[in-house]
Amino acid sequence: MTRRVTLDALNTMSSAEFVAALGDVFEHAPWVAEAAAKARPFASVKALHEAMMDVVRNASADWRIAFVAGHPELAGKLARAGEMTDASRAEQGSLGLDRLSAAEFDRFAELNGQYRSRFGFPFIVCVRRHTRDSILASFARRLSNTREVEEVTAVSEIGYITRLRLVALVDGPGAPKTDGRLSTHVLDTMNGRPAAGVAISLYEVGASARGLLCETVTNADGRTDTPLFEGGPLRIGTYELQFDIGAYFERGAMATATPAFLGVVPVRFAIAEPEAHYHVPLLASPWSYTTYRGS
Amino acid sequence: MTRRVTLDALNTMSSAEFVAALGDVFEHAPWVAEAAAKARPFASVKALHEAMMDVVRNASADWRIAFVAGHPELAGKLARAGEMTDASRAEQGSLGLDRLSAAEFDRFAELNGQYRSRFGFPFIVCVRRHTRDSILASFARRLSNTREVEEVTAVSEIGYITRLRLVALVDGPGAPKTDGRLSTHVLDTMNGRPAAGVAISLYEVGASARGLLCETVTNADGRTDTPLFEGGPLRIGTYELQFDIGAYFERGAMATATPAFLGVVPVRFAIAEPEAHYHVPLLASPWSYTTYRGS
Amino acid sequence: MTRRVTLDALNTMSSAEFVAALGDVFEHAPWVAEAAAKARPFASVKALHEAMMDVVRNASADWRIAFVAGHPELAGKLARAGEMTDASRAEQGSLGLDRLSAAEFDRFAELNGQYRSRFGFPFIVCVRRHTRDSILASFARRLSNTREVEEVTAVSEIGYITRLRLVALVDGPGAPKTDGRLSTHVLDTMNGRPAAGVAISLYEVGASARGLLCETVTNADGRTDTPLFEGGPLRIGTYELQFDIGAYFERGAMATATPAFLGVVPVRFAIAEPEAHYHVPLLASPWSYTTYRGS
Amino acid sequence: MTRRVTLDALNTMSSAEFVAALGDVFEHAPWVAEAAAKARPFASVKALHEAMMDVVRNASADWRIAFVAGHPELAGKLARAGEMTDASRAEQGSLGLDRLSAAEFDRFAELNGQYRSRFGFPFIVCVRRHTRDSILASFARRLSNTREVEEVTAVSEIGYITRLRLVALVDGPGAPKTDGRLSTHVLDTMNGRPAAGVAISLYEVGASARGLLCETVTNADGRTDTPLFEGGPLRIGTYELQFDIGAYFERGAMATATPAFLGVVPVRFAIAEPEAHYHVPLLASPWSYTTYRGS
Repeated sequence: MTRRVTLDALNTMSSAEFVAALGDVFEHAPWVAEAAAKARPFASVKALHEAMMDVVRNASADWRIAFVAGHPELAGKLARAGEMTDASRAEQGSLGLDRLSAAEFDRFAELNGQYRSRFGFPFIVCVRRHTRDSILASFARRLSNTREVEEVTAVSEIGYITRLRLVALVDGPGAPKTDGRLSTHVLDTMNGRPAAGVAISLYEVGASARGLLCETVTNADGRTDTPLFEGGPLRIGTYELQFDIGAYFERGAMATATPAFLGVVPVRFAIAEPEAHYHVPLLASPWSYTTYRGS
Repeated sequence: MTRRVTLDALNTMSSAEFVAALGDVFEHAPWVAEAAAKARPFASVKALHEAMMDVVRNASADWRIAFVAGHPELAGKLARAGEMTDASRAEQGSLGLDRLSAAEFDRFAELNGQYRSRFGFPFIVCVRRHTRDSILASFARRLSNTREVEEVTAVSEIGYITRLRLVALVDGPGAPKTDGRLSTHVLDTMNGRPAAGVAISLYEVGASARGLLCETVTNADGRTDTPLFEGGPLRIGTYELQFDIGAYFERGAMATATPAFLGVVPVRFAIAEPEAHYHVPLLASPWSYTTYRGS
Repeated sequence: MTRRVTLDALNTMSSAEFVAALGDVFEHAPWVAEAAAKARPFASVKALHEAMMDVVRNASADWRIAFVAGHPELAGKLARAGEMTDASRAEQGSLGLDRLSAAEFDRFAELNGQYRSRFGFPFIVCVRRHTRDSILASFARRLSNTREVEEVTAVSEIGYITRLRLVALVDGPGAPKTDGRLSTHVLDTMNGRPAAGVAISLYEVGASARGLLCETVTNADGRTDTPLFEGGPLRIGTYELQFDIGAYFERGAMATATPAFLGVVPVRFAIAEPEAHYHVPLLASPWSYTTYRGS
Repeated sequence: MTRRVTLDALNTMSSAEFVAALGDVFEHAPWVAEAAAKARPFASVKALHEAMMDVVRNASADWRIAFVAGHPELAGKLARAGEMTDASRAEQGSLGLDRLSAAEFDRFAELNGQYRSRFGFPFIVCVRRHTRDSILASFARRLSNTREVEEVTAVSEIGYITRLRLVALVDGPGAPKTDGRLSTHVLDTMNGRPAAGVAISLYEVGASARGLLCETVTNADGRTDTPLFEGGPLRIGTYELQFDIGAYFERGAMATATPAFLGVVPVRFAIAEPEAHYHVPLLASPWSYTTYRGS
């Protein structure tokens, strides 16, 4: 998983080398890469990924189900037995599924079991697009789907997973990017200018806990020098931005009460589309503010 | 402290009865009631209170300082020894000073000690206008004042304390009211109408903890049937209103994402003037909101 | 039309007197009052009006159409021939239909003619709920309706017309009120308080002209001492409030540019429901404002 | 004035050619170019302009006053006698000073006369940074200045005038740009996305008239494909943006009243800094909007 390769190299190497390079992208299924190799050359990594997904979608129903069923249980026994591919392991780890408490582990295991007994294949989800809460919400929602819907959903989730694996594998000219961006902008509506020097914290707000994701400060344009998040999918979930508006107006000797009416302003919002751009600005005076999804 | 009396009765009773009825209002200082009795009749409780405060303000400097010095230490030894008047005890209890942890108790005791050694009299504050955090902030600010300023501040705080005691004592026609009110209003800017049925929670946000103060729901006019708080001074401190806007728009089938961009909207603000009216409305669409101090 | 009468008197007078008092309310149709007289006494003017409308609605189809057809043409020959009842004349005058230019008169006459030839009865509209523009818009919309819809619409408009006539006729205890109210409120979000002393002008914005309706100034609560309009139906149409925010902030020495970014702030909005309450507040800082339909 | 020249050419030509090329930039004052020629080469047009302005500022007081006094009267006899340089004529024309009514001409002539008799030199203003109203406001303000302040102001205005002349004269690599930009952005807060296809009109709002400056439509990002204005200084004055929000929401079947509460939304604002960027966004739902100076 660690050696990166260019699209040009993928287009020109032998079929065997191609399968060696990409055979791991689809879990236990080098046949996907084998079939896709015949459709070379690809103009883009997106086209390559589409071709590989077409192989999956066009496989016979039995074959496709077997492929789906070959995926690891989420947080299941495989996680401890080391049978996952390296790529799968890295993704599941990002949610902290390897750090579940005993009670949480039991909850996931129970849901996994319900799902498998209902549909005959494991619950598959692209964890890098999710928070722990949104995975639990997905379990609840997907358990009430029909088998037909879940077969499609499982393949769709495999699409998300393998797209991210390809992005990680390919570099050089035409190297793909993953979308997903979170940004903000603070305007001072008392003085009609960007609010510079405003301390901002971003939290993930879970059902039972919150975690600090980053801290930053607005620049002269009222923005942050780099987006709050970019370069990969956002995680479906609830977030809170905290803007220290009180300290900003106090520095400008514009506070009109002690303590100031507005100190740390929390803005809580949910992300539903991991590949989208979420722009969440704040227009603030010492006694009022407006926030919205911008663009 | 439990028997209430009318202003009319206070105006017509004997001097001795007047002192018996009100002698406790000013701590260990029945002479205040004695002197004020001569200025009867009073047209209002406000006028009565002003007359009593004038007695204090016009006392000789030595006498006034002795009076100030006769007040109990905040959370000090007196609290445990039971030497406070009943009125003082009730007020201190409302802050939860009798439930301080050992560390917190030590912190208050240390500040009390610093204050007394600097000014020669105890730190006096009307606790019913404060939260624990704002008392700590007052300590910090007032410790850097001059003695002249603190003499005036101490008498001013005694004014707040005794006004509330009088309000509690007097009923009948012309019975006084204490100001201080917190209200809200939720407007649905997507549909141009009040947002009815929005669940609202109000929290006190302390430096180290938060406490739920009340839960309510908006009525057909987007307001709460009764104010979030009224009938006494607000407490200087930081608060958070939480509006369940997500559930409101979901009920109207107006959610446009899953999860909705706005779910529970927190609005955090500080109260600096306990006797004022704080109106904190929310104008909300599924993707934007505005809040401000209204009137 | 000038002598007013109490509900009590209406309930107790003879049938003949009742018809004499109210026979003019429904155009050329004393039989409506005659029939309604039998349902006395009425608990309210609203109940009286409902009873009279029920007489119309329950009349035979031929009789009802004849009644509708007996109404004057809007701005038609009757207006010049003096055949309208006094009440009808007063209502049509309020729109300025007697001051139409020749071209406008021709336009109305043409639409009247189209309407009558299509439906067989004159175009009936309660002009006191309309502006000239909204009547033209009604013509356009109603000309494309079916005859069934227009029969119902004509009776509904007669309901609006006669309700206002009754309101004008009846006084004393239980005298009715007509709804319809326009109000505003100006908040200063820079200082967290009502904006007092803000000059406000209200205009009707017609397709080809605008007319000043009133000028006022906000009081200490940021409101106007009396609503911008109340005591009768609003007129369907477009309006513009102009708030002199620039002068307000300049007086407070809070202007931060010359000329100020915000001077006179226009807020243009339409009224669609004449009997509703339109509250149109302004939240303003020197560089930003928010407006909305409030409640 | 029509032949453009590169900075490189200006740096390498003979002194005589340099004066021929730039002698017209400062009114009747080729000596400014003569002196500046000695400071060549210049790294930028900005440096060249600064050098020329330094020549003016460092001239003896008498010489500088004579230079100032050599400028044409605004809208004065020179305008008709054809004695202005071509550059001056073009600038004065842009305000429409050659299309003044007789009454307006008299007003300008009277103010010109007052100014000259008070200060001994003509009223100088860079008309391309102004509207007719802001010039009248400048007259009023500057007439009450001291002579010292007006000497500095006149030279400062000459700086604005000559900077624009240089910008028009020089092209090629390193060609200068003039600042000044007006832009907008429309967000749909009902749907949480940019409002595409919103018709926008921009007007200059004069004291006695308004003029349409441009019409455009928002693109998929809620912005206009090109800024509303750029490439030169904005004119100090009052403007109105009109956003057809009503038609936008009607197209999306999101109108909730007939007529819609919000149709054409006017946003009126003043520009005080011609070289600045004014970003004036609109956040709109069908029943509410917010506007502000953004960045």
